[in-house]
Amino acid sequence: LNEHMPADKKRILANNNIKFYTIDAVALAKEIGLGGRINTIMQSAFFKLANIIPIDKAIEYMKGAIYKSYGKKGEDIVNMNYAAVEAGVNAVKEITIPADWATATDTQDADNGKPAFIKNVVDVINAQDGDSLPVSTFVDNDLVDGSFPLGTSKYEKRGIAVSIPEWHNEKCIGCNQCSYVCPHAIIRPFLLTDEEVAAAPAGMKTMTPKGKALEGYKLFMAVAALDCTGCGNCAQVCPAPEKALTMAPAETQDDQIACWEYVTALPHKENPMGKKTVIGSQFEQPLLEFSGACAGCGETPYAKLITQLFGDRMYIANATGCSSIWGNSAPATPYTTNHKGFGPAWANSLFEDNAEFGLGIYTGVAHQRDRLKGLCEQLIAGGAKEECANAAQAWIDTMDKGEESKATSAALAQTLSSCDCSNDDLKAIKDEILNNKEHLVAKSQWILGGDGWAYDIGYGGLDHVLASGENVNVLVFDTEVYSNTGGQASKSTPTGAIAKLAQAGKQVKKKDLAMMAMSYGYVYVAQIAMGADYNQCLKAITEAEAYPGPSLIIAYAPCINHGIKTGMGTAQAEMKKAVAAGYWQMFRFNPTLAEQGKNPFTLDSKEPTSDYKDYILSQVRYSSLKKLFPDRAEDLYSKSEAQAKEKYLMYTKFGKLFE
Amino acid sequence: LNEHMPADKKRILANNNIKFYTIDAVALAKEIGLGGRINTIMQSAFFKLANIIPIDKAIEYMKGAIYKSYGKKGEDIVNMNYAAVEAGVNAVKEITIPADWATATDTQDADNGKPAFIKNVVDVINAQDGDSLPVSTFVDNDLVDGSFPLGTSKYEKRGIAVSIPEWHNEKCIGCNQCSYVCPHAIIRPFLLTDEEVAAAPAGMKTMTPKGKALEGYKLFMAVAALDCTGCGNCAQVCPAPEKALTMAPAETQDDQIACWEYVTALPHKENPMGKKTVIGSQFEQPLLEFSGACAGCGETPYAKLITQLFGDRMYIANATGCSSIWGNSAPATPYTTNHKGFGPAWANSLFEDNAEFGLGIYTGVAHQRDRLKGLCEQLIAGGAKEECANAAQAWIDTMDKGEESKATSAALAQTLSSCDCSNDDLKAIKDEILNNKEHLVAKSQWILGGDGWAYDIGYGGLDHVLASGENVNVLVFDTEVYSNTGGQASKSTPTGAIAKLAQAGKQVKKKDLAMMAMSYGYVYVAQIAMGADYNQCLKAITEAEAYPGPSLIIAYAPCINHGIKTGMGTAQAEMKKAVAAGYWQMFRFNPTLAEQGKNPFTLDSKEPTSDYKDYILSQVRYSSLKKLFPDRAEDLYSKSEAQAKEKYLMYTKFGKLFE
Repeated sequence: LNEHMPADKKRILANNNIKFYTIDAVALAKEIGLGGRINTIMQSAFFKLANIIPIDKAIEYMKGAIYKSYGKKGEDIVNMNYAAVEAGVNAVKEITIPADWATATDTQDADNGKPAFIKNVVDVINAQDGDSLPVSTFVDNDLVDGSFPLGTSKYEKRGIAVSIPEWHNEKCIGCNQCSYVCPHAIIRPFLLTDEEVAAAPAGMKTMTPKGKALEGYKLFMAVAALDCTGCGNCAQVCPAPEKALTMAPAETQDDQIACWEYVTALPHKENPMGKKTVIGSQFEQPLLEFSGACAGCGETPYAKLITQLFGDRMYIANATGCSSIWGNSAPATPYTTNHKGFGPAWANSLFEDNAEFGLGIYTGVAHQRDRLKGLCEQLIAGGAKEECANAAQAWIDTMDKGEESKATSAALAQTLSSCDCSNDDLKAIKDEILNNKEHLVAKSQWILGGDGWAYDIGYGGLDHVLASGENVNVLVFDTEVYSNTGGQASKSTPTGAIAKLAQAGKQVKKKDLAMMAMSYGYVYVAQIAMGADYNQCLKAITEAEAYPGPSLIIAYAPCINHGIKTGMGTAQAEMKKAVAAGYWQMFRFNPTLAEQGKNPFTLDSKEPTSDYKDYILSQVRYSSLKKLFPDRAEDLYSKSEAQAKEKYLMYTKFGKLFE
Repeated sequence: LNEHMPADKKRILANNNIKFYTIDAVALAKEIGLGGRINTIMQSAFFKLANIIPIDKAIEYMKGAIYKSYGKKGEDIVNMNYAAVEAGVNAVKEITIPADWATATDTQDADNGKPAFIKNVVDVINAQDGDSLPVSTFVDNDLVDGSFPLGTSKYEKRGIAVSIPEWHNEKCIGCNQCSYVCPHAIIRPFLLTDEEVAAAPAGMKTMTPKGKALEGYKLFMAVAALDCTGCGNCAQVCPAPEKALTMAPAETQDDQIACWEYVTALPHKENPMGKKTVIGSQFEQPLLEFSGACAGCGETPYAKLITQLFGDRMYIANATGCSSIWGNSAPATPYTTNHKGFGPAWANSLFEDNAEFGLGIYTGVAHQRDRLKGLCEQLIAGGAKEECANAAQAWIDTMDKGEESKATSAALAQTLSSCDCSNDDLKAIKDEILNNKEHLVAKSQWILGGDGWAYDIGYGGLDHVLASGENVNVLVFDTEVYSNTGGQASKSTPTGAIAKLAQAGKQVKKKDLAMMAMSYGYVYVAQIAMGADYNQCLKAITEAEAYPGPSLIIAYAPCINHGIKTGMGTAQAEMKKAVAAGYWQMFRFNPTLAEQGKNPFTLDSKEPTSDYKDYILSQVRYSSLKKLFPDRAEDLYSKSEAQAKEKYLMYTKFGKLFE
């Protein structure tokens, strides 16, 4: 406390005769057997200290409530909670406030390497002192147009996880799946040369990765210890025969902090595997990191993967909802830039018009790029030097090809800027091209949002945008409920699921948004579930981006609102179960195949192998309906199961429509 | 002119030394061979009289323009138009204004039988003198809540048709198809007893209808000569071996005016055939008549038919668009009431929320009726007299059955109001039921609008309402273009069609709204085209209304915006051609069948038998693209044809998804 507590808080405590207590509820909960659940301990500590009712009475009431809630679950559960009540009462520890706190002052930080923007704006706002910022701060930091710099979340170093992954290099098989699924981009594989390994801080262990492409490298699985939220999905999905990742107390992994700093500061290396495979994709830098999403979030792994594939030339229109919150929890921005300074441009619009917002951005950019094309054609027709004309033509030939246009854009800019032009007209054209060179690389336009946006409030616009035939990519984080907005059922909510504001359970079935979009024929459509099939997920995202028309990907996203009984650390496993139970269907509809005379539809889900009701009852959003309305629940569960079976059966036949 | 011109206009002419001319352009156009096209004649008459450029020059310019426009179409067309120019110049006739017009006064109308509302409000507004109406007029005529009385269009008697149908009783086969398709409800079959025939005005001819149900009746096909717009669809569709209807000069049919007045004033007769067949449906009074729709409108026949089937218990929420204009061209209201005073309740909401508006009306009514049910249950439980309790129970048992509830509602109201109740509590309940008796009969909730509403601007809401599972019926007048709004392409516009504000032709294909709605599984969906299949049309509307969930009917509606080269008099024939060419698909998707273990999908269109391109090129919206962009046109025509073929093929397989 002496070391970490800010001086102004120390002074308040000391100068106001305030009583000050701590309790290590996390350790107690673990010891008692309650895992991460500290609520009962904290509640009884509150009653002990607040003394609003005599503590004996409070204990009696709390125990009574525990017996009522958990009596049916058996004596063990009840006793654990009784123990938690006792612990809360007995383990509070009063802190004697040192006299010198009354006059405490913060030692001035040495220049800690933080950019001015972080020190002058972000830290101030995070200290809840944003109101003190004068207008000049916003002017000086270039914020007057409303834009915020990228890549600021990495300075937060919240250190909120109790347990974080510990990597066992000797057990690792180098599959990179831990990195693929990590919602916060805190675990990443780095390829190091022997020299780099030799110069590394203590605590770095490595393994020798397989495969010709990685020859000569050592692999280090870096963990951002202070950015991890401790969800545990990485360890859960680890397929190594003996787990290569286990969750360890955070304080045991302190040596990883320096390792992380070391590897992330190393010079950029080209990805030797390319990004077309699950393993290879993880050698790309995630351009979404350390967001404000919940631990174990089912949404962020999708967005993160997209930034690994296209983030350096990506524009994002983001609907209101969870993704607009974790996408920009001001003042921190989790979208970030690569070694060249390129990263996603991100903005949020309303629930009701985000698809249109994205189409508008796309259209604006398309016009700018058409203008550049015209300028290049003028250069060529106007008799520019051969090297300039060639570079202009090479750019025109590739201007709509995302990856290829990177090289031709760079070459064009380089050629034009080094050309010593004697013709004033041509020079004016070249200058105009160079002044607009940010538009040279083909952009990847993405439109992101949840099911509340895509199925409901923004659907009219989404449909209009998909119908337009323009080259935009839509990804729906389908949590099957309005998550951030407070828990209303959406048209994506399946029969029988409850929501916070729809406690009687959804009566009508889930809307088939994919089917509706497929009816256009010229819209790329996919349903994916990352944890169920990493390859299918990657393939769908890659195909969608490559398709030169509108694309819609609907991604199953487990959410804290589901009440997954095994916790959000099993979010990825939950997706696998959802597909195995026939709860979620994976498929891809690619109009490009139809143009080639092939069947555009591929059903990627296998026939369900596990019990549907077992699956849904493993989530509180379904199981709690049983407690509230037992008869209705049984009826709706059966309906829900029958609908899922019908849907799968229908999809097994769907491809025949195109034969 | 002496007889018909209002006195105030006469005085203006006489007192201001105004020159006054007439021209019988209609007769001239017919004589020259231009049919109903009087525009060239009127244009040259204008130049002759306005003298803004020397008339010789004007004639030269007009003829030059004619040669440029029609030169390619051959000498005959050019000469006809030259003749029209000459006629306009030469046939204007100056009227010498009688001296007594300077002091003309209107002879006061005798009481002409018009209701006070017509005389005091409608006629005043129609004379463009609405601004003179004081607030007290609105108060006195009960208009302060914004509602207007039904059935006022029949007082307009516009007499705008040049030709109207003449019925040849001896050739008639009594099929009632003329009445079925009439957009303005001006031709209707009446069944008369011999006594009624004997007392009829001169000019009434009758025939003896076939069939046991009609035994003893004579059939008279009445024509509302002054309400007809002269479109000619009735004569066009007449299937009698020798046409039983021909279009005759309006002035030859004056004797039909009295016949119409006579038969429409006869006492109501129950429909002896019922309304489940095309013939039988036409013995029901249309509760939509003499609307402001264009001659030959493809929309109104659908709405009119629905009012014949359910109009006496029908609520309509109407989207902005043509149907909101012809549905209520203030001050005239074409929706009307039957002999009992029952008719559709109609209101218009916005483009963007009409489906929700309709659902709101439905929900409000459902709550009122639930309350009535509760009151009836209280009556029964509270020990009401046996006859009251029985009537209440009979109503509860049928309360959601449209036709049956009419009788039980009337019986309940009758029983309760004649009951002399001694129990104060029961009396209070009865009074409350009687005070709300307008809610007793089960209502038929309809939501009407065009494709601009349903496919585009209102689609988000429409989708939400269909997804709700509530018992509302949606009918889309699909003109494939924003008609009333000014001619924008909608998502319903097919590939290759132009619109006033989309002259380059639609690039992407027509949205398959039906397919999207069918994806829910619990929405009744049909595509219909009246002129192609009268029975399928009637069946779909009847099934949709009977289905106790949401229903969506998409009705192909020819429109003046299509530029049908044979004119709007062939609107019904155009629908037949559309289906034969594979341009439009007819089908029905009935979830009730699925519940019974049957296949819910029925494709009603036969395999196309005629040429697709011949069909589209018979309409200016397609053919004009060829003139503007010949290459693009060929490409889009071929795409359009391929898409239609693909769509039909897909629908032939669609039913297999449910096997």
